[in-house]
Amino acid sequence: MRGAIQAAPGFPTNDSPSCRPGWRWPAIWAAGFFTLCTALTAHAAADAALGKTLATQGMGSVPACSSCHGAQGAGTPAAGFPRLAGQGEQYLDEQLEAMANGMRVSPVMAPIAKSLNADQRASLARYYATLPTPLDNAALAATAQEDVRPEDRGAWLAKRGEWGRNLPACNQCHGPGGIGVGNQFPSLAGQSAAYIAAQLQAWQQGHRPPGPLALMPAVASHMDDSDIKAVAAYYAELPNAAKKQAGAGAASTPAVASAQAAGSANGNANATPGASSADAPGVHDAGPGKPPRFVPPLASSIPDNEFGKEVRLGEQIFLHTPEMAPKFVGNKLNCASCHLDAGRRPDSAPMWAAYVIYPAYRAKNGHVNAMAERLQGCFRFSMDGKAPAADDPIMTALQTYMFWLASKAPTGVKLAGQGYPKLPPPPQKADYVRGEAVFGQFCATCHGAQGEGQKQDGHWVFPALWGPDSYNWGAGMHQLGNAAGFILANMPLSQAGLLTAQQAWDVAYFMNAHERPQDPRFKESVAATRKRYHDGADSLYGLEINGHVLGSDSPPAAAHLQKEGS
Amino acid sequence: MRGAIQAAPGFPTNDSPSCRPGWRWPAIWAAGFFTLCTALTAHAAADAALGKTLATQGMGSVPACSSCHGAQGAGTPAAGFPRLAGQGEQYLDEQLEAMANGMRVSPVMAPIAKSLNADQRASLARYYATLPTPLDNAALAATAQEDVRPEDRGAWLAKRGEWGRNLPACNQCHGPGGIGVGNQFPSLAGQSAAYIAAQLQAWQQGHRPPGPLALMPAVASHMDDSDIKAVAAYYAELPNAAKKQAGAGAASTPAVASAQAAGSANGNANATPGASSADAPGVHDAGPGKPPRFVPPLASSIPDNEFGKEVRLGEQIFLHTPEMAPKFVGNKLNCASCHLDAGRRPDSAPMWAAYVIYPAYRAKNGHVNAMAERLQGCFRFSMDGKAPAADDPIMTALQTYMFWLASKAPTGVKLAGQGYPKLPPPPQKADYVRGEAVFGQFCATCHGAQGEGQKQDGHWVFPALWGPDSYNWGAGMHQLGNAAGFILANMPLSQAGLLTAQQAWDVAYFMNAHERPQDPRFKESVAATRKRYHDGADSLYGLEINGHVLGSDSPPAAAHLQKEGS
Repeated sequence: MRGAIQAAPGFPTNDSPSCRPGWRWPAIWAAGFFTLCTALTAHAAADAALGKTLATQGMGSVPACSSCHGAQGAGTPAAGFPRLAGQGEQYLDEQLEAMANGMRVSPVMAPIAKSLNADQRASLARYYATLPTPLDNAALAATAQEDVRPEDRGAWLAKRGEWGRNLPACNQCHGPGGIGVGNQFPSLAGQSAAYIAAQLQAWQQGHRPPGPLALMPAVASHMDDSDIKAVAAYYAELPNAAKKQAGAGAASTPAVASAQAAGSANGNANATPGASSADAPGVHDAGPGKPPRFVPPLASSIPDNEFGKEVRLGEQIFLHTPEMAPKFVGNKLNCASCHLDAGRRPDSAPMWAAYVIYPAYRAKNGHVNAMAERLQGCFRFSMDGKAPAADDPIMTALQTYMFWLASKAPTGVKLAGQGYPKLPPPPQKADYVRGEAVFGQFCATCHGAQGEGQKQDGHWVFPALWGPDSYNWGAGMHQLGNAAGFILANMPLSQAGLLTAQQAWDVAYFMNAHERPQDPRFKESVAATRKRYHDGADSLYGLEINGHVLGSDSPPAAAHLQKEGS
Repeated sequence: MRGAIQAAPGFPTNDSPSCRPGWRWPAIWAAGFFTLCTALTAHAAADAALGKTLATQGMGSVPACSSCHGAQGAGTPAAGFPRLAGQGEQYLDEQLEAMANGMRVSPVMAPIAKSLNADQRASLARYYATLPTPLDNAALAATAQEDVRPEDRGAWLAKRGEWGRNLPACNQCHGPGGIGVGNQFPSLAGQSAAYIAAQLQAWQQGHRPPGPLALMPAVASHMDDSDIKAVAAYYAELPNAAKKQAGAGAASTPAVASAQAAGSANGNANATPGASSADAPGVHDAGPGKPPRFVPPLASSIPDNEFGKEVRLGEQIFLHTPEMAPKFVGNKLNCASCHLDAGRRPDSAPMWAAYVIYPAYRAKNGHVNAMAERLQGCFRFSMDGKAPAADDPIMTALQTYMFWLASKAPTGVKLAGQGYPKLPPPPQKADYVRGEAVFGQFCATCHGAQGEGQKQDGHWVFPALWGPDSYNWGAGMHQLGNAAGFILANMPLSQAGLLTAQQAWDVAYFMNAHERPQDPRFKESVAATRKRYHDGADSLYGLEINGHVLGSDSPPAAAHLQKEGS
């Protein structure tokens, strides 16, 4: 069940495109367009009692919603009527508005929606948002942690996406098991396949408003009919699958079975010389003086042996870190929060590129770090937690996954796409106020108006960007250069290219000009700690911004772990 | 100072080549030839008092040795007269014999040697062997652990050799700092450069007997004039250098200096595409279906930065493991004892090939091992010691060295020369008695008649092959296949090809049919331990050989460490 509408975030409304049905949205206008529609509906008076009357009894020419959507708003999947119960209030209100004004093309709903005034629509939205979902969201969310194979196409797209085609996982925004998130990302689980497919096609054809950041038209445009069919079938069937899974007990972890022949090269074939297409797994020459390009092995090629099991275990830890390594993760970030596409995506600090350049000397701690120590840093800083021992099974699994991702990559060679892009300095000095505006326009929808992230039913979906639940002051992402590079190359999710470099620098500055958990290396004072670890233009730690010295009011590092006594 | 001649090992004398001067020795005859000469001299009566008289006063036409070789037998380097004091008794006796019969061409010594009878030669040999060396062997030995660069050619050949040209390090047989070892490997330190050069040239020209296993003619044949000059100068100067070094205090360990830019690819250039000569560092295609060939980077290319310092530290640990990691090594083996040429040599389990195939599943312990765990196994089993923690600085340094050796090698790909060669089963079942004969003929000279190894002044030079100072029953080398592959490809040192596959299997069987430290995983009984860890044709542990159940009388694992309480 969702919470009520929160104070509307202060979106700038500097664009005002027309609202004609069938209109196509240039990406650059989309965000403004969405916020305009938000503004149009934000002031209606919602009355849940009125909503209930309308829903269950109808009014005048308006039939009772329940006649199609069910007495409890559970929908009628067989007929393609969607479930409304428990969807986000703002989302429902916007859809009614869009069906009324024709932006969302629905011959059945259009006359009904048009008959309702703004207050009635708002009331219906509130009523349905407060109705309990008929689904077992906990069981649905648990499905997100089940292993998945690329052959299982619908599940793969839902849980992993296909980043090579710029398709993020559906769950990435719609929550684990498609349970829906907040006011803007509706639940998909259990909606009829016909309904889901029709919506994706509507985005392809411009028959639905673009929604937040115009994400869905972009996503749908990258999907073909078979993708749509697979993913629609997956979510339609998911509540049944989840029930079965829950009945079968906890998700099975890969058991270590009988020994296989050791000493082999772990199922990787010998290096196959000869050129191949640019997207084929392996190393690609990028021309003289340029670092080679690398494509990690296909996810479907993890071998079916003991080694492969360890690779999959590492992949699961990478994707579900707080669940798989609860003793070590202090916030709710996954490895994949900063290393997109399960650590495969270039310019998103991909694991294959990191694997081949360690052990390496790090100025951060003044000595050569083996890979295990480098990973310990992630847990301690980015995950605001506690480092597992170098030989903890978690470390072995993560390194094995990285090693497999790096199959055939040349040892010790810097590959194209390694780390985050190093941007040249911005045209104008990075600025808090401009950054705040960028944040409101492009980031707050997912990460929350206060950078607090979003969770659903206790499951974090969008990571917090500052505050007690985010990475701490020792994390690489608190450095402006890293953050700007990551943001420009990867944010908003699947919408890289939307921001200018200046905007990336500005919003990186804004994000990192907020308080976050203390640097675990803190000693004596903020000033001394800054001098020792952060004495450069890349860190705002210890600087006074808007009258506050950053770091002076930080929650202690790994506070969550300490609270839980683990 | 050397011990007296031990009971002559029972060498078979199935060959009997002639002893003409200038005769060239086919390798296959050489060992037999040497043992024949040994047999000829073994029965003379040595009398140290008689030796002293001859040495200091002469006798009849024989001048006092001391007139050229000095009152204390220290030699006269300026004149090219070698030091005799402290050289091996058997070695001295053989040289006098060879100079007498003309096998060793020496116009000055020939008439003198001819004037001496066998008893007189034996007495002189004993006298000089018991004279104390005038050198500081401890200081000399310490020089072996100083870092060395390939540019320093003489030192490099002496301490590291040049395996690509089949040149083992001189120190490998002549002991650290060339202090000499046992009865057969004379001290080189402080001999005049002219004398050393003349001997190497004598071997090139067939003017000196081949000596043990005909090693020196083979070695000298691989050296050119500049090699000889460099290495002769190095040993001539070494006592002075050692004195200086000892005066300067302990060998300096590489200090960690100021931070350098992190995030670089550690000084390795980007992969340079395009073909290069077959011996150029990097990956070489070996044709379809064949694993790629790999050549590790030149030793001279270790970068001069913090990363490079760590590589060098790892290299030093690899070469001098008991000295650098005393808490963890229970016997006196170095990593380089089994991984020749500092882990660079193909078919000798080279480190570059190992690096790129870990993490890997190992049947030995039934799970995927990261590199650190694999290395821990070496310490625990092969070195009969205690595993350093996964994040011990020793482990980081070793992994960094391995990583650097693997520069540009493809991750996860099996390379040609990985591990030890997997031999097909021998034509005849491996046999103890045949193996014993092979051992006596080819191995005992260096490893001792009882496989006990050889040390000099407390410094181990030739590793023990069984008994309390060798690898334990858990080590990979106790497996017949590993041992046979290693021996065939690498033994005798620099003489690969001398043995047949059958001989390698036989001697591997003989070697591993002796008692050694207990498997540290021992539980309940030898039978139970065999069933659990050694239940196959590759291990003799727990089997009864010559009336003794192997493993039933093993010293405890890591007994040396436990004794020293570390």
